[in-house]
Amino acid sequence: MPAAKSYVTPLDYEKMTPEEREWAVLTGRADLDRAMKEGTPRSTTPPASPPAQPSADYAVVGKPQKDLEGYRIVTGKSTFTVDVYLPDMLYVRVLRSPLPHAKITSIDTSKAAALPGVYGIITYKDIPAQVLAGLKPVMASEPALVGDPIAAVAAVDETVAEDALNLINVQYQQLPFIVDPIAGAKSGAPLALSNLQSNVSGPDFKVVRGDVNQGFASADVTVEHTVNTQDQQHVALEPHIAVARWDNDVLTMWTSSQYTHAIARIVAATLGMPYSKVRVISAFTGGGFGDKTAVYPYHLVAALLAKKTMRPVRYELTRLDVFYEGSHHFQVVQDIKLGFKKDGTLVALQADSTARLGAYSRGSGLAGDTLSGARLEYNIPNILLNGRGVITNTSSAGARRSVGEASGMFALETLMDVAAEKLGMDPVDLRLKNINETGDPESKLPWTSNGLRDCITNGASAFNWKSRWQGWANVNKGAGPLKTGVGFMALASNKGSKSPPMTAVVEINVDGSVRVVQGAAHIGGPQRTTFAIIAAETLGANLDQLSVSEPDTAFTTDTGIVAGSRATKSVGSAVKAAAEDARAQLLGYAAAKFSKDLSRTVNPQDLAVTNGQISLQTDSSVKPITFADAVNSGFIIVDGQQVPAAATIIGRAVVPPVTQYAQQTYAAAFYEVQVNVQTGVVRVTDAMQIHDVGKVINPLQLTNQVHGGSVQGTGFALTEDYIYDTATGIPVSSNLDDYKMLMINDVPKITALFVESNDAVGPFGAKGIGEPAFMAAAAAISNAIYYAAGIRLTSLPMNPKRVLEALKA
Amino acid sequence: MPAAKSYVTPLDYEKMTPEEREWAVLTGRADLDRAMKEGTPRSTTPPASPPAQPSADYAVVGKPQKDLEGYRIVTGKSTFTVDVYLPDMLYVRVLRSPLPHAKITSIDTSKAAALPGVYGIITYKDIPAQVLAGLKPVMASEPALVGDPIAAVAAVDETVAEDALNLINVQYQQLPFIVDPIAGAKSGAPLALSNLQSNVSGPDFKVVRGDVNQGFASADVTVEHTVNTQDQQHVALEPHIAVARWDNDVLTMWTSSQYTHAIARIVAATLGMPYSKVRVISAFTGGGFGDKTAVYPYHLVAALLAKKTMRPVRYELTRLDVFYEGSHHFQVVQDIKLGFKKDGTLVALQADSTARLGAYSRGSGLAGDTLSGARLEYNIPNILLNGRGVITNTSSAGARRSVGEASGMFALETLMDVAAEKLGMDPVDLRLKNINETGDPESKLPWTSNGLRDCITNGASAFNWKSRWQGWANVNKGAGPLKTGVGFMALASNKGSKSPPMTAVVEINVDGSVRVVQGAAHIGGPQRTTFAIIAAETLGANLDQLSVSEPDTAFTTDTGIVAGSRATKSVGSAVKAAAEDARAQLLGYAAAKFSKDLSRTVNPQDLAVTNGQISLQTDSSVKPITFADAVNSGFIIVDGQQVPAAATIIGRAVVPPVTQYAQQTYAAAFYEVQVNVQTGVVRVTDAMQIHDVGKVINPLQLTNQVHGGSVQGTGFALTEDYIYDTATGIPVSSNLDDYKMLMINDVPKITALFVESNDAVGPFGAKGIGEPAFMAAAAAISNAIYYAAGIRLTSLPMNPKRVLEALKA
Repeated sequence: MPAAKSYVTPLDYEKMTPEEREWAVLTGRADLDRAMKEGTPRSTTPPASPPAQPSADYAVVGKPQKDLEGYRIVTGKSTFTVDVYLPDMLYVRVLRSPLPHAKITSIDTSKAAALPGVYGIITYKDIPAQVLAGLKPVMASEPALVGDPIAAVAAVDETVAEDALNLINVQYQQLPFIVDPIAGAKSGAPLALSNLQSNVSGPDFKVVRGDVNQGFASADVTVEHTVNTQDQQHVALEPHIAVARWDNDVLTMWTSSQYTHAIARIVAATLGMPYSKVRVISAFTGGGFGDKTAVYPYHLVAALLAKKTMRPVRYELTRLDVFYEGSHHFQVVQDIKLGFKKDGTLVALQADSTARLGAYSRGSGLAGDTLSGARLEYNIPNILLNGRGVITNTSSAGARRSVGEASGMFALETLMDVAAEKLGMDPVDLRLKNINETGDPESKLPWTSNGLRDCITNGASAFNWKSRWQGWANVNKGAGPLKTGVGFMALASNKGSKSPPMTAVVEINVDGSVRVVQGAAHIGGPQRTTFAIIAAETLGANLDQLSVSEPDTAFTTDTGIVAGSRATKSVGSAVKAAAEDARAQLLGYAAAKFSKDLSRTVNPQDLAVTNGQISLQTDSSVKPITFADAVNSGFIIVDGQQVPAAATIIGRAVVPPVTQYAQQTYAAAFYEVQVNVQTGVVRVTDAMQIHDVGKVINPLQLTNQVHGGSVQGTGFALTEDYIYDTATGIPVSSNLDDYKMLMINDVPKITALFVESNDAVGPFGAKGIGEPAFMAAAAAISNAIYYAAGIRLTSLPMNPKRVLEALKA
Repeated sequence: MPAAKSYVTPLDYEKMTPEEREWAVLTGRADLDRAMKEGTPRSTTPPASPPAQPSADYAVVGKPQKDLEGYRIVTGKSTFTVDVYLPDMLYVRVLRSPLPHAKITSIDTSKAAALPGVYGIITYKDIPAQVLAGLKPVMASEPALVGDPIAAVAAVDETVAEDALNLINVQYQQLPFIVDPIAGAKSGAPLALSNLQSNVSGPDFKVVRGDVNQGFASADVTVEHTVNTQDQQHVALEPHIAVARWDNDVLTMWTSSQYTHAIARIVAATLGMPYSKVRVISAFTGGGFGDKTAVYPYHLVAALLAKKTMRPVRYELTRLDVFYEGSHHFQVVQDIKLGFKKDGTLVALQADSTARLGAYSRGSGLAGDTLSGARLEYNIPNILLNGRGVITNTSSAGARRSVGEASGMFALETLMDVAAEKLGMDPVDLRLKNINETGDPESKLPWTSNGLRDCITNGASAFNWKSRWQGWANVNKGAGPLKTGVGFMALASNKGSKSPPMTAVVEINVDGSVRVVQGAAHIGGPQRTTFAIIAAETLGANLDQLSVSEPDTAFTTDTGIVAGSRATKSVGSAVKAAAEDARAQLLGYAAAKFSKDLSRTVNPQDLAVTNGQISLQTDSSVKPITFADAVNSGFIIVDGQQVPAAATIIGRAVVPPVTQYAQQTYAAAFYEVQVNVQTGVVRVTDAMQIHDVGKVINPLQLTNQVHGGSVQGTGFALTEDYIYDTATGIPVSSNLDDYKMLMINDVPKITALFVESNDAVGPFGAKGIGEPAFMAAAAAISNAIYYAAGIRLTSLPMNPKRVLEALKA
């Protein structure tokens, strides 16, 4: 029998949707695949020594800083897309399918078109077949879920547009449909779309490492369970919206987006235009969480209706539209099994993951993402992972904070808790025993940094774990109906990496002030503040010298998506590199100025910059000069030569991909819950997350990120559920009454702690936080519920119904 | 007696207004002064050989191209500042002084403030003394002209704001005033401002070359006259306007401007803010002609009222406001004298120029500018020029197409005509005999190119001068009341030069499309189209691959003013340099792609780019690739090394000043007029201008520029006159009934011809056109009037009153 070879199935980029390709890029997977395919020497000369950047004290980095855009936002002065109203603008409303699967046999819009105030209507007949939003039809002829768009009306106001929808006569031929992915994967199941051969969207995701059968054969203890996680909507505060205006051959679009450049690029490609002729503006983005990463039908509806009517068109989705047309975190069913030596050493992992893709996602990438962290968090010699996607007549699967990883970590980390009990070990000790601190076993590349051990140990200490967790004998030992327990989890994530495109421009002006021109979304991170800190630190400038631009594709270069927790590490790297380029020029100017003033040769390398002052390191008696003094000197020293120069500096950067290291982020979480065994209500009463952020750029905003992530992650764990009725195919929680989000009184004390592992490639050693903060909740809560009430919950959300059922069983 | 030394009085930059400094920079004068002061080696190694660029045929350059923004403009879809309306916006109206000079003894705004709908009022009491618009008070305490701003009201609409003005009670103490600059220069004249010692604003402008007394002593023929040119308003179609909004510490201002970066920089400096915190947007500018180059009181009024009311504020000047607050071309009185040998050789020039500065211009620079071309157009061994400015209680002197040069050329070129008659020479031959083709006698630098001889000879041929001009014996020989005559002039101008700041960014996107990010105004040139042509040609791209950004200081770098005829040459040079930088990177990507595809080393220098295709020059059997193919290859070859690269190219340029050459533009003009000796009405019946443009970038738009310039120049010559009543100090033509502009039926056939002298430093050899097209009118018309009717008119405008007076005399 030949030795099993470690491999990862390369992703098939040709068959991917644009969203999937974006994810592949933003998670660094595309780099890895390309490097493997094209033979970049990524693993030939891995650095032997630990790659950590030196830990240092900085002037601006690491200091708490309020969002520089905060005043505008809280006073309502920031221009979100919902604030954009243009002269002569028309308003759009969309007729949506009431059926989960059907063919349109006839559609008559003539009465609607005749209604005064209606300026344009489009149906599938107006959309060329190749004009798709990803795989979604812009207007459906074969609607494949309840809510698929059928006809769009542009009218003088929304009331007229809605009236017109009621005048559209559509005849449908109903078709069979499928909601449940497990049922849908079986042969003979109804096909979700008439052109499918099978609902299973291949090829399967597969990872093989070692020999999993031998692994389990050698194990002393084996644990397994099946986990079911649900569809979750992102419910961004600002609804999805596009305002489109055509000026001859140029399309300008305002949209609430996490990635203006992708919208511009994909809309341009879809409509057969150069990317440079589509201008997309998104000055502020009111939340995204992964659901504003791609082109949706509404973008193209706005563009096409604006073209047809020759007037600006505004399409603001209602909350119901968002539930229908937005993507969702996808239901995923995971069978997972772990094998251990009796000392707790992990020897085998086997898992099988089935993701519900909805009607318009494809491939097995989403299923695969659930288990990507699991195979890398711990040292496991033998692994077999399988995953597949199943096409169903439900809302499309898409990215939501961590994509599939939160589901995968829920499956893994609850099972680790089961194993700890079976092994008779403290769950903290079980994780510490197995951490993979070396690097990626598949690519053989070392981690840029790994602070998981410190996350766990620092957290256990701060949470006072040893006294609050009293051993397995004390499970379900509380008296009375309110039972309290604590739970723990650790996690690794492939998000938060440094990945292209990474571009930026940093300009130093004649008065010494600085402009950072970059195109990343400002979506609450707060990203522009992060970039200002990074640029100020790099330049040696004061923070109030700087401004940071809004994303507008007419001006800014493509610096990639704000998603995948990549903004700080990736965009921050670009801003830092552009600032370094600007700084080098600044020193050239300053050297010329000092040389002239002192009548002797001063070289750029003799100079230091701090607090907006440039000083001569070799002679403290010389008075420092300002940025303005330097750039106005009229000369610059380049390669030792003094040449005349104009008083403007343009620093720029296009940062190449990281090929020498593998990148992961890490966290640990400690939660305390109170389970009411009479009502089934679970309340989180204490939450602590400890994140390896590489380096703290802005402690105030990092803490805010943890607060937001913990709340949304707790909603995922306990309440949020986008439910389809299996019998009718109708979603029954498409509104904010039935779709239960946490309210402010559900939010516990949340403590955020940070470990600085000084990442090898992040700006000042930083890495991402957005998604790990979401991931670090569900498994810890489930484990705490078990400790409190003795029930193992493996389906999310862990709502009162499920709690009471488990208590009964 | 020591040999007289050639010198030019260095400008005193400390004492200049921001506008004056801008002019000094844009005319290259600042470079010259700095170079002289700081010892830049500008004249140590002048190139020995002619510096002309090779003449070449280009793919895009030189082809007629409609304005790429034309569709938006003619369909009303372009966003001029007058199209900017913001939510919750307030509207401003300003109370203006009815007196030419006074002190405010009391001002009571309480009734106005109590009017419902009024949100804020400012008077001089609200403006710190150091907050000035140039030298102009934002709100005057000592109004020094009729129309000086006294109080500004921000209200819910313009009607309420106007009603509020009527409720403001102002008491004035009248002060003596002066309108006429000659009278104002005399000792004992009333002082225009109470803090002046004298109305004469020194130091005098002075140029000495050789010995002018010896020159005249050696002359066989001497001619002289006194010329008086008038105040001219620019009357841009879009009135002056500023819309201001504060977001905490950030000021955003929309304004109709020729130079957004100057507005941002100066407003920031005035208000004590970093330049990066003032964002100025001017997507389209509806005409400027020199009057939208600076910060005016209205900019600061809008900013201060927006800050005071905490609401966006819009201040659109009425046409009357524009006449009052806008700058004007200034009245200038010139005594000029020329000495010739009898063969026509020029041996001496003496001139004295007195400019009316109005209340808020200073120095002698404007007077000096009138004669700057005169001293450089012809070889003249002996020169004495003097000039001064006189402060008066009139509208401020400022730049208007060519600043003072059109007045200077009117004085010189009408006197050349007088001289030609006295010498018995064809006026064409007299110019050809004296052209200075070598370089600047003061700086000793060679011209970048000089096509004046070709302008004159090509024009004479195309106009059929030899048959239409029948010699001096035929002056005033026509019969009947309508007398026809032809006239000629030549000109040199210091405008149209390449001068800093010159910056641009050119981005190549993942789909191969190209974005030119630059900050110059689009003001009818059409500048963005010019830059697109230059970038496309440089890159080898197709024009439809490109977009060119609007000016917005949040994103674009400072590329200098669109004035001084510098956009094509200066901004064009920046765009070309940035495109060259992008092209070099593109070839690096393409070389990596070819190397991979062909499995052999391909170097960037082996490649050619045409029509958006990159081809291997050394092997025509290899299929060319697109820009998209290249940038998506994932690698770039830099210095022979192949390195991983992201699919974005950022080309950038900060172009240094020109220090090796002196720059001038040249033109000749041939006009035919019809003089009605009964009514005094002069009509231009045929106009031909021949311009040395270096290289034709876009023949269609060059022709349009000549049409516009000729029409405005003819208005200057014949009709436009901003008149102050000397007795009362009141302007009597502050409206478009009394201020006579040419109407469409006054416009003759206009022929534009171009000479390509292949300028040494312009992009593809190009230089400017905007101002020469204006200058090439008045003297030719005056000379034609003389030839038709026998009258020498030396005051502008040459309106029926002056024609009849001259005929009578």
